[in-house]
Amino acid sequence: MDYTAPTADQVLAITINAGIAELAAHERFAAASPDMVEAIVAGVGQFAAGEFAPLNRKGDMEGATLANGTVTLPGGFAEAYRAYVEQGWNAISGPVDNGGQGLPFALATNVIENLGSANMAFTLLPLLTVGAIEALHHHGSESQKARFLPRLISGEWSGTMNLTESQAGSDVGALRTTATPREDGTWSIKGTKIFITWGEHDLSGNVVHLVLARTPGAPAGSRGISLFVVPKFLVNADGSLGPRNDLRCAGIEHKLGIMASPTCVMAFGDNDACIGELVGQENEGLKAMFTMMNSARVNVGNQGVQIAERALQQARHYARERVQSARAGSPDKSSVAIVEHPDVRRMLLRMRALTEGARALLYYTAGMVDRGALGVEGAQARADCLVPLIKAWGTDIGCEVASLGVQIHGGMGFVEETGAAQHYRDARIAPIYEGTNGIQAADLVTRKLGYESGAVLTSLLQDAARDGAAYPALAALAQDCIEVAGWMTGSATLDDKLAGSVPFCTMCAVAVAGAQLARQAASLDGQDTPQARAKLVVTRYFAEHIAAETRGLKAAATAGAGLLYALDADVLAG
Amino acid sequence: MDYTAPTADQVLAITINAGIAELAAHERFAAASPDMVEAIVAGVGQFAAGEFAPLNRKGDMEGATLANGTVTLPGGFAEAYRAYVEQGWNAISGPVDNGGQGLPFALATNVIENLGSANMAFTLLPLLTVGAIEALHHHGSESQKARFLPRLISGEWSGTMNLTESQAGSDVGALRTTATPREDGTWSIKGTKIFITWGEHDLSGNVVHLVLARTPGAPAGSRGISLFVVPKFLVNADGSLGPRNDLRCAGIEHKLGIMASPTCVMAFGDNDACIGELVGQENEGLKAMFTMMNSARVNVGNQGVQIAERALQQARHYARERVQSARAGSPDKSSVAIVEHPDVRRMLLRMRALTEGARALLYYTAGMVDRGALGVEGAQARADCLVPLIKAWGTDIGCEVASLGVQIHGGMGFVEETGAAQHYRDARIAPIYEGTNGIQAADLVTRKLGYESGAVLTSLLQDAARDGAAYPALAALAQDCIEVAGWMTGSATLDDKLAGSVPFCTMCAVAVAGAQLARQAASLDGQDTPQARAKLVVTRYFAEHIAAETRGLKAAATAGAGLLYALDADVLAG
Repeated sequence: MDYTAPTADQVLAITINAGIAELAAHERFAAASPDMVEAIVAGVGQFAAGEFAPLNRKGDMEGATLANGTVTLPGGFAEAYRAYVEQGWNAISGPVDNGGQGLPFALATNVIENLGSANMAFTLLPLLTVGAIEALHHHGSESQKARFLPRLISGEWSGTMNLTESQAGSDVGALRTTATPREDGTWSIKGTKIFITWGEHDLSGNVVHLVLARTPGAPAGSRGISLFVVPKFLVNADGSLGPRNDLRCAGIEHKLGIMASPTCVMAFGDNDACIGELVGQENEGLKAMFTMMNSARVNVGNQGVQIAERALQQARHYARERVQSARAGSPDKSSVAIVEHPDVRRMLLRMRALTEGARALLYYTAGMVDRGALGVEGAQARADCLVPLIKAWGTDIGCEVASLGVQIHGGMGFVEETGAAQHYRDARIAPIYEGTNGIQAADLVTRKLGYESGAVLTSLLQDAARDGAAYPALAALAQDCIEVAGWMTGSATLDDKLAGSVPFCTMCAVAVAGAQLARQAASLDGQDTPQARAKLVVTRYFAEHIAAETRGLKAAATAGAGLLYALDADVLAG
Repeated sequence: MDYTAPTADQVLAITINAGIAELAAHERFAAASPDMVEAIVAGVGQFAAGEFAPLNRKGDMEGATLANGTVTLPGGFAEAYRAYVEQGWNAISGPVDNGGQGLPFALATNVIENLGSANMAFTLLPLLTVGAIEALHHHGSESQKARFLPRLISGEWSGTMNLTESQAGSDVGALRTTATPREDGTWSIKGTKIFITWGEHDLSGNVVHLVLARTPGAPAGSRGISLFVVPKFLVNADGSLGPRNDLRCAGIEHKLGIMASPTCVMAFGDNDACIGELVGQENEGLKAMFTMMNSARVNVGNQGVQIAERALQQARHYARERVQSARAGSPDKSSVAIVEHPDVRRMLLRMRALTEGARALLYYTAGMVDRGALGVEGAQARADCLVPLIKAWGTDIGCEVASLGVQIHGGMGFVEETGAAQHYRDARIAPIYEGTNGIQAADLVTRKLGYESGAVLTSLLQDAARDGAAYPALAALAQDCIEVAGWMTGSATLDDKLAGSVPFCTMCAVAVAGAQLARQAASLDGQDTPQARAKLVVTRYFAEHIAAETRGLKAAATAGAGLLYALDADVLAG
């Protein structure tokens, strides 16, 4: 199945939820004029559909392969990546000083959304590069910025994040990779990292690894971690490529999905000759990582929207083409397209409501990240609250929508050649990486909820209650969330909060997403276009079905931790 | 990860939910003494763990392969199947007249559960054979029974169901395979069937296909369908094997999961020499199929329990072994096994509650099927109501539990070698085949709900309210279900009922499963064993979290079809 960019809904979300006109009113984002927005959304949509989408199934079937230390991608990937770089799509939001266009994150979000719907595995390559750009932009020396940023921003070089080690996982503080000072001021890096996305490949001229490591005598745990830039090819003072660095891809994982994204085991310093440069201050590596975490988490939430959109397109095409059985109760006994059957309609409407709701939340979040960067009062704190919502719920609905897409296909959905199954497999990684969804929910209740003693989150939920007021179930859900937040900031223990964190995170996400959909619907009120009519129905469905059903989570959110610890581990898990 | 049979919980479910003692009080099932039950449950658990489980990952990696018309399975499958037949496991519930043990379906359910937890793909082979046995037992001639049943019951031969054709799918009435009479009273079969599970393979001495086809001049649609037995090798009058029949496997599907189960395209009569025998009366093929549909659907619901159990075992093992991060808020900063973290506990307890709840529902249903066969008053009608519940909800929770299992593994869950991902892939077929879960829900609201104008289903729900009375959320959910059923049998239109069918089906399943768990908990009341303490916690979690959350579906169940048809198909799915 082809991919067609959902341009109209994206423009609506950028306009209403990200509030692009308000952003463009700031000097820094003045270039984000309506014409520019339309040009970018339409342009990248077309590019993604034409260049990335045709490689999606091929990438899944052939995957990335490792031979003699070199990772190769299926034919066509190199050409498509080159076209992507040449057309300048990688540079949309990069800093202007180093060749970026400096446009809002809300627009970069759209580039990523379209590319990822077209080809989720492939799009991880630019996604990781964004993280490297941010780390170097905010924490690198002038020399590092001058040598690395221009080509990372153009996309000629790509970037990676090297956090995970097998014994550490989500507990980054437990990592063991070492960095020891060399005489020339650089550092010798030694250690093995796992789960390094696009850690090795032949699509870009250099792979710029950002590596967390410990320097000699560093404090234990997360306070003793420093960040290093460790390129595959060393970079000379003038920015030209020097010799190959002592690092290699020691293996790639055989995964459930995103087959075209090489997930590498990276070995640094096999010959004690892996050279890295310290980025920022020693022992402040984790702080530097946190800089890029917000946008990285939004970008993963975006992946949920991406795969949901792609699965929806595939399913609705099938539902209109596939003719089977007469309508129940109809005097006309001739078979109809399955889209006419009530439960198929239900599944399609649910897929659509979840997808459009998550998109509305995504662009609302992206716009808030932009306001935070602009220093708009209260915006950064609100963005911080939104990040776990879009990361966790966005990726959850990505899985659910992909699963509904399989179901609409019936038996054909379980057969790989149809393509629906690939979305189901690809989607499953997003709730896991960049902080599992459980970690997002913990972040929500233990850190974000604590902002101003709960006032920041509560104000977000009050706005949701107001924006969703035309839909009783939405307003009621937002009110439920406020009550749960009150209980959590009140009598609940830390364990109680954590016990209820995942259902609470879902509740908040649905409440805010629904409110953002309601804002879209209100903006189209009175128009008699297919878009306006559909948006009204989708919003009502979201409120009356999805928000209503989500209210059922309140009991779990406030149940406390007692039951979870009523059994010893060996009985609970024995 | 190994598989260990959950023998204690299975015995509990057989005892309390299937009510095995009551069944054994009937002459026909007198052999099902407590000793016999224990021997079967323990025996098949051990057999499954020892012989089937070690082949699960191998089967997934190597899969079934087709070459020169022959399907081969990975090494070890043939030996394990031979051991299975030799030990007599296939004959547990087969009719006594033809060599079966005639034991209750509740015990056959346990055999299937253990084998399927050990190896879901492999277990489809005996599962399909059961269907062939039932069809021939109820509808075959004496000669057919004598020639086919003994070896199908022993398992020396295997059986298949040939319903689906590519243009027909769930609309069986649209099939086109033809059967034309031959001079000797047999029929010449011609046509192509798809999605034929274990349609070709080399593990059994013969493959006995039961094929739906149309005879000359048959009425259009489902009233013109007849059932034929079409063996791979013709069977002589004395039961010995004759020549190869004119049928072949024309292809096998490349699927998302159950890789070791060959899903075949079967071509009958390429050379106009495919010989079949009519089973039962002409044009009554669909009725014959319905005979075996109840047990087949229960057996697929069973697969949900199977994969959930296996995923749970894998996840709890990982959660106890994997050490990562200190407990939040703990003064002790040393890392703990992740089972100690609140959200991991939540996931494990949820997995366990869903698995044990579905198991309780499964055995309650199986016991009711047995009562139906015994002619106990009202039992068949109640069993008919339970079948869509266990098929749909059992398979839904199979997917959910497998997904939670992946999540508990974090990044390792997405890596195939861990094994969690296989369960996630395998589980996804069960909501699709043997009637999609949407079709189950439609069956519930359009047929089963209509039994005695709703009285049969309502009485089941009243019993659930009573049995769950100690748990307010359970009783409230059962009451919700009764109200929805009342609305559906009252003012709701057919479209309204279908629009709410899936949420309603889930609500009913959770209510009845919860009530059956409550019965288990009550039976253990006062015992201070790990099993008793765990069951109390699991039941409370089921009620306070799962049942409470399910109450949120009531709005969707009663929303009606209006919103689903508010948009034309080209706008909804445009």
